[in-house]
Amino acid sequence: MKIAVAGSGALGSGFGARLYQAEYDVTLIDSWEPQVHAVKKQGLNIVINGDNFNLDIPIYHSTEIPENAIYDMVFLFPKSMQLSSVMDYMAPHIDDNTIIVCTMNGLKHERVLHKYVKESQIVRGVTTWTAGIESPGHTHLLGSGPVEVGALVDEAKPQVEKVVTVLNNARLNGVVSQDLHQSIWKKICVNGTANALTAVLECNLATLNESDYAQTLIYKLTQEIVHVATVDDVHLNVDEVFEYLIDLNDKVGPHYPSMYQDLIVNNRKTEIDYINGAVAKLGKEHHIAAPVNQFITDLVHAKESQRGAQ
Amino acid sequence: MKIAVAGSGALGSGFGARLYQAEYDVTLIDSWEPQVHAVKKQGLNIVINGDNFNLDIPIYHSTEIPENAIYDMVFLFPKSMQLSSVMDYMAPHIDDNTIIVCTMNGLKHERVLHKYVKESQIVRGVTTWTAGIESPGHTHLLGSGPVEVGALVDEAKPQVEKVVTVLNNARLNGVVSQDLHQSIWKKICVNGTANALTAVLECNLATLNESDYAQTLIYKLTQEIVHVATVDDVHLNVDEVFEYLIDLNDKVGPHYPSMYQDLIVNNRKTEIDYINGAVAKLGKEHHIAAPVNQFITDLVHAKESQRGAQ
Repeated sequence: MKIAVAGSGALGSGFGARLYQAEYDVTLIDSWEPQVHAVKKQGLNIVINGDNFNLDIPIYHSTEIPENAIYDMVFLFPKSMQLSSVMDYMAPHIDDNTIIVCTMNGLKHERVLHKYVKESQIVRGVTTWTAGIESPGHTHLLGSGPVEVGALVDEAKPQVEKVVTVLNNARLNGVVSQDLHQSIWKKICVNGTANALTAVLECNLATLNESDYAQTLIYKLTQEIVHVATVDDVHLNVDEVFEYLIDLNDKVGPHYPSMYQDLIVNNRKTEIDYINGAVAKLGKEHHIAAPVNQFITDLVHAKESQRGAQ
Repeated sequence: MKIAVAGSGALGSGFGARLYQAEYDVTLIDSWEPQVHAVKKQGLNIVINGDNFNLDIPIYHSTEIPENAIYDMVFLFPKSMQLSSVMDYMAPHIDDNTIIVCTMNGLKHERVLHKYVKESQIVRGVTTWTAGIESPGHTHLLGSGPVEVGALVDEAKPQVEKVVTVLNNARLNGVVSQDLHQSIWKKICVNGTANALTAVLECNLATLNESDYAQTLIYKLTQEIVHVATVDDVHLNVDEVFEYLIDLNDKVGPHYPSMYQDLIVNNRKTEIDYINGAVAKLGKEHHIAAPVNQFITDLVHAKESQRGAQ
């Protein structure tokens, strides 16, 4: 089985590393020249849950994928805003049997994917694994908890089973989600509160939790997200989700979420349009007001403009 | 006529200086010891529209006002959250004829004042003059535009005339407001957008205007404020107010509003509860939703907590 990891930054190269260690025929693909160059030259230097590895893992720049290469399974790990361009360069290397695995943060990525493949080819999911990139070719991966995957349509169920097997062989703890949409929306609650607020307030999760006012902000954002989630027939209890979010922030207190890292540390544009922005947009489509999700989306964009984020 | 300026920080000492120069029997009163000490020792050093003055103007600490002193007119210039405590210490020095002049930023200060005096004694207004304090005893005052004052009840109209006369004698450009509530709400639109957003985004007004997203934030906040203003029978056109705000930000571009100065420069608690917070609260009383005004209020409070603002 030929596997591609399209978008091999922090999380992508982490998943790629575990697949490689499980002796899958895996290839990393990325369009960030320094990363491609470094991994080609010195291999991937990666710390997985504290253990250091140097892996001579194959990597292609997105422009140099061999013309006749067709992959059986493609794991997608680009930033949300790059998904279309990644699918554009992967399209010639996908056929009707290729399984597309999308465990990216954000909502409704399947709308983009469905332009390229049948719904039965899409395996959607969420992951609690986190990763970071210290410098080109040097990354880390942290996690143990499940990678929950599921089918958007019944015809995708056999593909989900295949992905779970691959994930488990690679010690990435794959499980079939009991309720895929609920899993996705619960992750949106996590990202739509922790990511946006730590980027706006420039703090970590522990500091966020310390303020009653910040907790009120978390509650208000969650309240709207839970309301909009009903359009996917997902019914969450706002108080239960809120408790879960506060507990989670306590547990991973010193962590700075990816949006903070993107905007504050690296001065990069954020995924806000695919998280809070997507909630507001989906709400609007279904006549559910989500004013504070829209407000924080615009606030993060204003901050991107002012910092000249790239 | 004995005049007191209760709260003699930047704007208070500026108004006091002009009254003193017009030879009114004016006394500054403040409870910030360094300011009182400096003015007592070296006089008030003040730059008014570029001209430097050193004025030997009387000042009392709030604890040392002579027991039998009664003032004919009291100008109030404390921070909003200090209004009750200022009125507590001024109460023994006010009688049924004392005129209370409140041109402070914020909504519904008259609810506090009415606990101490009759409505006919209250002259409410707004000012476009700005001021700053460089160090104790050293301040500046900038302005020329009108100090608009008006009556909340018809019985206060003669008092309004007296205040206008005093302001004009002191070259502070007093005018009777054509529509007091409209003036107050228009000022709330200014403060509720420029102050809150520059404090959250840590930028000046020019930078704020440069981002389309920031302009969207201004628009959304204004939209709610204009809606809540209807409870005071004030009917503003949101697009006209928005244009006015954008023009104003352009004109005074390099300026950092008082809330930015309080929170970011001086790490002080802000007046957010009296501006956006007051809009949300008044909206709630009248069943008008103002979610983004409430959200930015909580956001500023969260930022105060995280900075340990005093």
